[in-house]
Amino acid sequence: MKKEIAKLMDFRSDVRVIDATMRDGGLVNDFYFTDEFVKDLYFANIRAGVDYMEFGYKASRELFDENKYGKWKFCKDEDIRAVVGDNASDLKIAVMADVGRTNLNDILPKEESPIDLIRVATYLHTIPGAVKMIEDAAAKGYETTCNIMAISNARESDTMAALEMLAQTPAECLYIVDSYGALYPEQMARVADRFLEVAAKYNKKVGIHAHNNQQLAFANTIEAVGDGVDWLDATYATMGRGAGNCAMELLLGFLKNPKYNVYPVIQFIDKHMTQLKKDGIIWGYDLQYLMTGLLNQHPRTAIAFTKEGRKDYTQFYKELVVQDD
Amino acid sequence: MKKEIAKLMDFRSDVRVIDATMRDGGLVNDFYFTDEFVKDLYFANIRAGVDYMEFGYKASRELFDENKYGKWKFCKDEDIRAVVGDNASDLKIAVMADVGRTNLNDILPKEESPIDLIRVATYLHTIPGAVKMIEDAAAKGYETTCNIMAISNARESDTMAALEMLAQTPAECLYIVDSYGALYPEQMARVADRFLEVAAKYNKKVGIHAHNNQQLAFANTIEAVGDGVDWLDATYATMGRGAGNCAMELLLGFLKNPKYNVYPVIQFIDKHMTQLKKDGIIWGYDLQYLMTGLLNQHPRTAIAFTKEGRKDYTQFYKELVVQDD
Repeated sequence: MKKEIAKLMDFRSDVRVIDATMRDGGLVNDFYFTDEFVKDLYFANIRAGVDYMEFGYKASRELFDENKYGKWKFCKDEDIRAVVGDNASDLKIAVMADVGRTNLNDILPKEESPIDLIRVATYLHTIPGAVKMIEDAAAKGYETTCNIMAISNARESDTMAALEMLAQTPAECLYIVDSYGALYPEQMARVADRFLEVAAKYNKKVGIHAHNNQQLAFANTIEAVGDGVDWLDATYATMGRGAGNCAMELLLGFLKNPKYNVYPVIQFIDKHMTQLKKDGIIWGYDLQYLMTGLLNQHPRTAIAFTKEGRKDYTQFYKELVVQDD
Repeated sequence: MKKEIAKLMDFRSDVRVIDATMRDGGLVNDFYFTDEFVKDLYFANIRAGVDYMEFGYKASRELFDENKYGKWKFCKDEDIRAVVGDNASDLKIAVMADVGRTNLNDILPKEESPIDLIRVATYLHTIPGAVKMIEDAAAKGYETTCNIMAISNARESDTMAALEMLAQTPAECLYIVDSYGALYPEQMARVADRFLEVAAKYNKKVGIHAHNNQQLAFANTIEAVGDGVDWLDATYATMGRGAGNCAMELLLGFLKNPKYNVYPVIQFIDKHMTQLKKDGIIWGYDLQYLMTGLLNQHPRTAIAFTKEGRKDYTQFYKELVVQDD
C-alpha cells in the first residue's frame, strides 16, 4: 500500500534515530577512536537531535584482549562518563551486548551507570541466550532492545517463533538487521510486516539496521519507516562494517521532524570522517560488497578482499560463484 | 500496493535495459573515451544482454567546438560504425538529441545509419521542440523515445499536459528523469503512476533515468520497475554527471530475466572503470551532491565544488542554504 501523502509531508513522533557510528564503525578501526572524535560526536548528536548514541560494545574481556582493541569495544562506564559526565542532555546512551560474547557482570546496575539502553544482538539460534540477557539488563533497570541478525537468510517460520519469544521479554523494540545487505525494499516491506504483526500484539516497537552492500541501506530504512518501523539506526558517512550502514546525513535530511538537524552531521563529517578516510580507514559501498550482498552471503570474504588491498573484482567474483556451498 | 511475490521471483519480458555510460558518463570526461574502452563496452553490453547502448549525443557542431570534446559528443555515424560494423548483434544502438542543441541535418535517414534509437531530451518548457524532433526522427525511420528532465520540480499539471502532447507523437517510451536526484522512492511511485496513466491510454511505455545524489538511483529504479516502468537506464559503476546514475551491476543483479548477466559488467569495470578513477576522472555519490539533491537543486554548484577539488563540505552547505532563491 502506498504511504499517504500526508505521511510524507508530516512526521511520526514515535520515530527514534540511533547513531551507531562508534559501534558498527568500530568494527572497521578496532574501536580506536580519538577522545576528540568521541566528544565531538557526542555533541554533534545532541545538536542534530539524535535520540540515542551507541558508544560501542560491552564485550567480554575474557574473550577479547584489551590490548588489541580501543576502549569502545568494552565501553566501561567510567570511559563513557569521561565523555558525557552526567549527560545533561536529551541524548540517551546505548551500548551493544552480543549473546555469547558478553560477561553480564560487566553490566552494573543502572543507577551506577551512564548507560540508558542495552541493545542485545542475537542470531536466530541463540534466542534463549538473548532472552536471558534482556531480562538481566531490564532487571538492572535498563531500557532494552533486541537485534535479530542475518534476517535475509532466515526462514520466516523461525523468525516468527523468535519474535514471539522476544516479544514476551521486557525488550521495547525488536530490530530487523539486514547483516548481509541482501534485501530489496520490497522484501524489507514484507519482513517489516512480520515484525510489526508480532510487535502490535505485544505493544512493542520495531527497528531497522541496514547495510549498504547494494546501495540500499538508506532506501530500505525509509521503506521501513514508511511501513511503520520506528527505531532507525544510522551512522555518520555510513561508517560501518564492510559496505557500511544507512547514512545519518541522508536519514536526517529525509525525516521531517523539526527536532532533527543535518547541519551538525555535515560539520562532524567535514572535520572527522574525511580525516579517517585519509588515515586509511576503509569502509563503504564497493563491488566486492555488492557481490556478497547479491549472493546473500556474510561479507567476511569481501572484508578480507578489502583488507588485503585487492582490486581484482573479476577474480573475486569467480571465487564467490565457484565455491562449494 | 505491494508488488506480488511472484513478480519479485519472475520477470517481465517487456523490460529493457539501456546502457547510458558513454552518454551520461561522457558529461564527466567531455566524451574522451579511448577506442578500446568503447569497443570493450560494446562487447560487454552484448554479453550482458543489455538491450540498448547509448553512444553519446548528436550535439550540434555549430554550438559545440569539435576540438573541445571527444567524438562521442557528436556521434557521427562513421564513428559508431567503426565500433559496431554492421552490428550483427541483438544490442541496439542509441544516441541522445537535446532539444535546442541538435542540428536535425546531422540525423541521416535510418537506412544510412547504424543508429536504431534517437532519444530526445527535453525540459518541460520545450515540449513543442521535442515533438518536432521526435517526428523528424520517426519520419527518417528511427525508433524514438523522449526524456522529460528535471521532473522533481515540475508541477504535476504541467507534467500531465506535456505527457498528453508527447504521447501523441511516435515516441514509444516516455522517460521520467530525476535530474536532481531529489525524489524518494515513494515520490517516484507517484510520478510513475502519472506517467503510466497517460502511457496506458496511448499504448506507450514508461522509462526511468535516475541520479544518485541520495544513494537512491538504484532504489528508485527498482521501485519504478515494480510499479510497471519498463525502460531502465543504468551506467557501469554509476558513471554519470555529478553523483552518477543507477549502477548497471546493481540493476543486472536485481533483474531476474536469465538473458541478463552481471559478469561481463564486472569484468569491464575491473578493466576500465577502476583505471578511469585512477586517471582522476571523478563522479559518484558524495556529500555535495546529497546537499543539492536534498534541496532539489540542479547539481551545477556541486559539480563546480568537485571540479575545484574542494572538500569544505560545511562551507558549501552554508553557501547553499544562505543563497537567495
